[in-house]
Amino acid sequence: MSALRIGVCGNGTVGGGTIELLRDQASLLASRAGRPLALTRVGARRDRDDCPLGDVPVHRDLLEVAQAEDVDVLVECIGGTELARDLVETALRSGKSVVTANKALIAEHGNALLALAEECGQSLLCEAAVAGGIPILKALRDGMAANTVTEVSGIINGTGNFILTEMGAHQRSFDDVLAEAQALGYAEADPTFDVEGVDAAHKLSILAAMAFSTPLNFSGVFCEGISAVTPADIQFADELGYRIKHLGIAKAHADGVELRVHPTLLPKDALLANVDGVLNAVRLEGHAAGETVYSGAGAGRLPTASAVVADIVDLARAGAEPVHCLGVPVKALKALPTLPMEAVSSAWYLRLQAEDRPGVMSQLASCLGAEGISIEALIQKPPKAAAATVPVVVLTNTAREDALRRAVAAISALPGITEPHCIRIESLD
Amino acid sequence: MSALRIGVCGNGTVGGGTIELLRDQASLLASRAGRPLALTRVGARRDRDDCPLGDVPVHRDLLEVAQAEDVDVLVECIGGTELARDLVETALRSGKSVVTANKALIAEHGNALLALAEECGQSLLCEAAVAGGIPILKALRDGMAANTVTEVSGIINGTGNFILTEMGAHQRSFDDVLAEAQALGYAEADPTFDVEGVDAAHKLSILAAMAFSTPLNFSGVFCEGISAVTPADIQFADELGYRIKHLGIAKAHADGVELRVHPTLLPKDALLANVDGVLNAVRLEGHAAGETVYSGAGAGRLPTASAVVADIVDLARAGAEPVHCLGVPVKALKALPTLPMEAVSSAWYLRLQAEDRPGVMSQLASCLGAEGISIEALIQKPPKAAAATVPVVVLTNTAREDALRRAVAAISALPGITEPHCIRIESLD
Repeated sequence: MSALRIGVCGNGTVGGGTIELLRDQASLLASRAGRPLALTRVGARRDRDDCPLGDVPVHRDLLEVAQAEDVDVLVECIGGTELARDLVETALRSGKSVVTANKALIAEHGNALLALAEECGQSLLCEAAVAGGIPILKALRDGMAANTVTEVSGIINGTGNFILTEMGAHQRSFDDVLAEAQALGYAEADPTFDVEGVDAAHKLSILAAMAFSTPLNFSGVFCEGISAVTPADIQFADELGYRIKHLGIAKAHADGVELRVHPTLLPKDALLANVDGVLNAVRLEGHAAGETVYSGAGAGRLPTASAVVADIVDLARAGAEPVHCLGVPVKALKALPTLPMEAVSSAWYLRLQAEDRPGVMSQLASCLGAEGISIEALIQKPPKAAAATVPVVVLTNTAREDALRRAVAAISALPGITEPHCIRIESLD
Repeated sequence: MSALRIGVCGNGTVGGGTIELLRDQASLLASRAGRPLALTRVGARRDRDDCPLGDVPVHRDLLEVAQAEDVDVLVECIGGTELARDLVETALRSGKSVVTANKALIAEHGNALLALAEECGQSLLCEAAVAGGIPILKALRDGMAANTVTEVSGIINGTGNFILTEMGAHQRSFDDVLAEAQALGYAEADPTFDVEGVDAAHKLSILAAMAFSTPLNFSGVFCEGISAVTPADIQFADELGYRIKHLGIAKAHADGVELRVHPTLLPKDALLANVDGVLNAVRLEGHAAGETVYSGAGAGRLPTASAVVADIVDLARAGAEPVHCLGVPVKALKALPTLPMEAVSSAWYLRLQAEDRPGVMSQLASCLGAEGISIEALIQKPPKAAAATVPVVVLTNTAREDALRRAVAAISALPGITEPHCIRIESLD
């Protein structure tokens, strides 16, 4: 069969890895794809020593690649959402399918781009945009095809997981570990996207759209980062049988979907609680398959390129048939209401500083009880010499977020109680 | 698009679950498959109350379903290898693709059946044959398409994992837990296939064929069951930082492949070490994606049916293009030599009973040292009152199996040493 002709835009980490795999695995890929995968064009603003291209033509104007006659599939690895969007639109309108690793692009402009792809009779795939080398989008789209998926949760930001793991293993502060992560290249100079959860929210919106056959809804994702988690929180959680992970969680209910990214206490025996360092892991709950968990490298040159090339193989095998990125045509997606966080229920970890005098604990319990929230576990440490206050940690039963917030407001108003800090708990069962 | 017409043979656990999903998920499936999936025929030796069929015609002669004009895809859920083989061959020769959950059939006759499928221009898929609801074959075939896969290992028999988990959690004997597993329906009345590793060997041969693009080689799988594992082994392993799991392991080396099923000590922080009860989990090592791990329900009505129906959706999406079960056409498979177990290397756990007298430990160490094997860890418990011997446990460094066997033979010949028992150790890194 004739070769599938690939144009890769971007020759950095992911683009360079993709070019490497297309070259080094050419024979294997031809066998698996049923036809050769030929790199015909590269778009790059500058040459790189770590990405030798042989005699493949290089274009400084990336849009030329998106329009080249000898390109069937455009691979977008330039990142960002401005030029990338232009590039993808141009490629689709020029009758090329597109493979991208760009989660921000899909999360923010995916609805329009997927509609455009269908209009143009092309495919737009993005396996590499979520959880790097883990084929989680294919697991959802293909493996879970018979399932009504009710929940997707996961550790989908490796930087955040690395920071929490290091904080817990060595009792180090967030700032200290973040500086190391930046030195190691795990975290960007501006770490906001990673540590404040924006990156995870991008990915969660893609997972949720696919899981629930609903349009992408990035702006509906509640987002809380990990910068407020302290080594003490990790230590208290450990004493109570939990680990703290930064999770993206999407749940489908009869009245809408929950979409949220936040630090989460997980029971130590949950598989996700045992996924450490820069690894990612995603848990799916399907009505038929039950719980399945997928873990692996969430980033990196070859893991991400592995996902990009797997998408190219999918396109090669599909031939003229477009592959629907979200598993169904865009017109079959159903908009679902997003539940406000006030209506979301979970159990809670509540840490605060309390003056060590009679009556404080009873008032604390009363504030919770007034909202129908009961205490499942409690830690109060003996006061250190000369310390005016002692840390108190409470685990509650499952409560609606609005009730918990009212209770915490009342607790904060109590004399002798300061610094209340809350973290949600998930059982993942 | 016109419906894909399905004939299901077998209305028991998996067949019944498949029929249930095709009926209850019809609308979702039509959307995801791009065309309706219509159940047109059922083959079953008797009706079952738990599998209502509405007005779908039922055939007592299963071969009629395999030849029916209004069947595009035959689903084989009858089990066994005699009639099932006949049924699958008949369907393929009649121009139907086949989906099967039958690991024994594929492991033992897959090479001939896959060749026949290609000859007939049809597909033969078997996602449900390995690890139930976990879409592990799709992960290998599609997700890892860009990878040279060097290793597949996994907990691929839920019954065995349940037994080992229970033995460890409650210090119960193998026989005791096996009886419970039989009462719970997890283990067959004749548990040989599960506990002696034959079932796992069937599945491993399928995983290895797909991972390494090589013909199925069930007879090449070394197979050791779990019946010799004792609660004491699990306890000693725990003290040394390990858990015992029954693993299937396939590794590709330059000079051939290892194919083996046996009890294995895993470090407690390995993800597979934390997969308990009837769950399955498979770990893939790809040159690009690195390590990815997949876990979930390895058996059961709906998890297995979820995999069957996912295969049907694959066929519906592929249209006229055959889907190659092993990722490449049969003619592209390359026979690889199987390494004899003597040439396989691993670290070892060695337990024995030793007389509590001077010189025994030194002789034991000498026997290992003579084969170039060093001791990495050792446990010797104080003698119980009146006990003539004490248990001794040794962990060795990595050694070739033939060297270890020679050392153990020498140790067994020592006066005062009895009951030597060996278990392999894998680090999975």
